[in-house]
Amino acid sequence: MGSAALMCLMRGHRVAHPPSQSFGEASRATAAAHPAGITPEAFDFQFWMLRSEFPGGPTQRDMNLFRIRNCFFAIVLFSAGALAVAQEQTGPAKAVSKGKPDDQPNMEIEKFGLVLHGGAGTIERSKMTPEREREYRAGLERALMTGYKILKRGGSSLDATEAAVRVLEDDPHFNAGKGAVFTSAGTNEMDAAIMDGKTLVAGAVASLRHIKNPISLARLVMEKSGHVMMDGEGAEAFAREHGIELVDQKYFYTQERWEALEKVKAAEKSRTGAAGKAFIITDQDRHGTVGAVAVDRNGNLAASTSTGGTTNKRPGRVGDSPVIGAGTYANNSTCAVSATGDGEYFIRATVAHDVSALMEYRGMSLKEAAQSVLDKVAKLGGSGGLIAIDRHGNIALPFNTSGMYRGYVDPNGKFVVEIYK
Amino acid sequence: MGSAALMCLMRGHRVAHPPSQSFGEASRATAAAHPAGITPEAFDFQFWMLRSEFPGGPTQRDMNLFRIRNCFFAIVLFSAGALAVAQEQTGPAKAVSKGKPDDQPNMEIEKFGLVLHGGAGTIERSKMTPEREREYRAGLERALMTGYKILKRGGSSLDATEAAVRVLEDDPHFNAGKGAVFTSAGTNEMDAAIMDGKTLVAGAVASLRHIKNPISLARLVMEKSGHVMMDGEGAEAFAREHGIELVDQKYFYTQERWEALEKVKAAEKSRTGAAGKAFIITDQDRHGTVGAVAVDRNGNLAASTSTGGTTNKRPGRVGDSPVIGAGTYANNSTCAVSATGDGEYFIRATVAHDVSALMEYRGMSLKEAAQSVLDKVAKLGGSGGLIAIDRHGNIALPFNTSGMYRGYVDPNGKFVVEIYK
Repeated sequence: MGSAALMCLMRGHRVAHPPSQSFGEASRATAAAHPAGITPEAFDFQFWMLRSEFPGGPTQRDMNLFRIRNCFFAIVLFSAGALAVAQEQTGPAKAVSKGKPDDQPNMEIEKFGLVLHGGAGTIERSKMTPEREREYRAGLERALMTGYKILKRGGSSLDATEAAVRVLEDDPHFNAGKGAVFTSAGTNEMDAAIMDGKTLVAGAVASLRHIKNPISLARLVMEKSGHVMMDGEGAEAFAREHGIELVDQKYFYTQERWEALEKVKAAEKSRTGAAGKAFIITDQDRHGTVGAVAVDRNGNLAASTSTGGTTNKRPGRVGDSPVIGAGTYANNSTCAVSATGDGEYFIRATVAHDVSALMEYRGMSLKEAAQSVLDKVAKLGGSGGLIAIDRHGNIALPFNTSGMYRGYVDPNGKFVVEIYK
Repeated sequence: MGSAALMCLMRGHRVAHPPSQSFGEASRATAAAHPAGITPEAFDFQFWMLRSEFPGGPTQRDMNLFRIRNCFFAIVLFSAGALAVAQEQTGPAKAVSKGKPDDQPNMEIEKFGLVLHGGAGTIERSKMTPEREREYRAGLERALMTGYKILKRGGSSLDATEAAVRVLEDDPHFNAGKGAVFTSAGTNEMDAAIMDGKTLVAGAVASLRHIKNPISLARLVMEKSGHVMMDGEGAEAFAREHGIELVDQKYFYTQERWEALEKVKAAEKSRTGAAGKAFIITDQDRHGTVGAVAVDRNGNLAASTSTGGTTNKRPGRVGDSPVIGAGTYANNSTCAVSATGDGEYFIRATVAHDVSALMEYRGMSLKEAAQSVLDKVAKLGGSGGLIAIDRHGNIALPFNTSGMYRGYVDPNGKFVVEIYK
C-alpha cells in the first residue's frame, strides 16, 4: 500500500486540456529504469491522464492544490498500508486493504498499458549473438508498437493484445505461429487463448496444425462458436467455416526449430540430463510462448497467449496457454495475466487465476501476487515467468529463469524491451 | 466457524481399539438427513475414527475427558468464529479464521469420504418414470459402492474416484463413456480429468473418440506421459502405446442420446427457445457429466470428472471437465471439486480453483465457498452444480438446476442417493 501510494505520486499526470501542459515532474523517475531509447510517434504522450478535473484548463493554483491533495492521499494511504502490514504480522486475520489510489472519488483516469512476453527460459547472454539479440528486440518492439497504436487511439485491450500477439506469431524467432516448435512426430501443434476482463468471456484453441494465427481463431471461438475452447480438426473446421485461411504444415517449418528437435531427441537418446542441457542452447528450444496483457482507456483488461508448445512434446499435448485460469486469465476487478514456461506446472498451479485470487481475496498487490504464484510454481519444480497488469496500469513481469523476452510501454510512453535478468 | 465447531461435536468418533466401542451418540443426528436405506456390507463402520489416542483401549474416564476436551475446543472455536464474523462485519479486513476443529493437536483422524455426481440439469420428477429413476439410483449406488470399498480398505482417493467414475462411464444412463451424447456431426467426443490433491499432479484428456474409459486415460496421461493434458488422436495414440483398448464409435451409440440430438437439432431449426425447451425432457440431453471427489484414510483428496460434453456441440468443443481449475481440481490444503453444467460458464468462472481459493485465502468453509462460486456462475448466466469435499470430510453438493444426480456416503456409512432438490 505504501509503495502504491508513492507510485501514485510518481506517476505522470496530465490534464486533458491544454494537451501540452503536464503535472508531475517526478513521473520521469519511473522512466529511468530501463529506457530502450525507442520513443513512439507521440512524443508528448503521457501514460496517465487526468480528465474532467479542470475542464477549462488548470491554473497554477489548481496545480498546487492537486499536488497537495495527492500528497494528502499518499500519506493517508501509506498509513493505512502500514497498519495493514502490522495487522498481518500480529494476527491470523488477513487485512484486505481497500482504498487504492485510483479508487479516489472524482479521479477519472484515462490510462492504458501494455506488456508483452516472448517466452522465458535459459537465455544466456554469452550464447546470444548481437545480431540475434537485435532481431528479438526488433520483434518485441514491432509487437509493442502494434498494440500501443491501438490503445492510443482508444481501441480495446482485446484488439491490442490480439494484434500484438499476431505480430509475434508471424515472427519466426518466437515459439508461436510461424516459429512454432516441432512435436516428437515432427509436426507443429499450436495452442492459444484470449480473455476479456470486462465480461469474462474467453476463447481458447488447442492442437491446431494449419492455422497461421491461432490467437485470432481463439478470438473467433470466443465470439462466434458459442463455446470457450475448441481443439484439433474441429477447431480448424470451424475456422474454415468462418473464412480463416488454413495453411500447410510446411508454413511452420523453420530450420532452427527442426534442429532443436533433433538436438532434444539426441539428448533424450543419450538419456543424461546433463547432456540434454548441453545440447539445448536456449529454453526457447524447449518451451517458448508469446503473450500480451493490456489495460485500455476504458479500464478494460485483456490477456492473449499463443504457443507452439514444447519441442519434442507428444502429439496431442496441450499446455497451459489455452487453459483459462492457468496460462491466460483476465478480470477487470483484478488483473490480466499471460504465462510462459513449463506448462504442466503452470496448469497444476492454476497460475493465472491464482494471481487474480490472491489480489481479490488476500488484497495482495499485483507484484506480490505474481511473485507469490511464481514461487509456488518453482516449489512444484517448474520454471518460467508471467506478465501481468492491473486496471491501475501497475505491471509485473516476474520470471525464475535466466531470461525472459519481454517488453512494455513505460509511464512516459517509452518502449522498454528486455531479455536478461 | 461456529457451525464447524458444532459439527465437530456432532461427529461420530470411534477409538481404534476395541472396534465395537464408540463415542458420540450425537453423531446419529447428522445421519438423519436423507437416509436412502442402503447399508453397505460393514454395518459397524463409522465415518470418523480416532486412533492412537487410547492405544490400550479407553476407560470411562478417558471417554469423559475426551468429551470435555471436545466441548472446550468447540467453545473456543465458536468464540473465535463469532469474533471473526464480527471483524468481517465491522471493517474491510477479511478475517481468515485459523484453528479449525480438526487442526487440534494429537487428533489423528482416520477418515474417508466419497461424493459423486451424475450431472445437473432440469430433472423433473413429473417426467421421470419410477423405473428410470430406479436405474439412475442403481447406477449411482454401484459407483458409490465401488469407490467406498476402495476407501474402506485403505485405498487412495485417486483409485476410488477413478473407479467410481468408470462405473458411471460404463452406465448408458450417464453422459460419459458409454452414454456420451452426440456432437452436431453425430460423433461422440469425450473429455475427462483427474487430480491428486497431495502432489497437485493432474491428468486431462479432451476430444477422445475411441476410449471406453476416458478417466483412466486421464490417469495414464498424469502418470506416464510427462504431460498434464492431451487431446484427440495424439491422446488416443498414447493410449494405444500403453495398451489401452480403443473402441469403435459404435460402442457409444445409444438410442436415447441419438434421439436427443435429433430433438435438439429440430429445436434449433425451429429457432425458438421455448420449443427447444419443450423438446428436451431433461438437461441430461444437453449437458451431463459424471464426477467423484474423495478423501482417503491418509487424508489425501482427489477429484475425477468425465463427460460426453453437450448434445449438438461442435466437434472439437472442449468443456470444463478437462480444464484443471474449472471442472476438476484437488488440493489437500483445501478441497477436491468436480463440476457439472454449462461448461463454458464454468471455465470462465474457473469454478473448481475458485472454491479452493476462497477457502484458502478468505477462510470460507467448503459449503460457503462452493455456494459462493456457483452463485458467480449463475450471475454470468450459467447453470449447473458441483460436488466438493475437504480433508475433514465436510461435503457440499450445491446446484442451481431443478436436479442433480448425486450420492455420498454419510457419516454413518450409509449411502445417500438423491436426484431432485
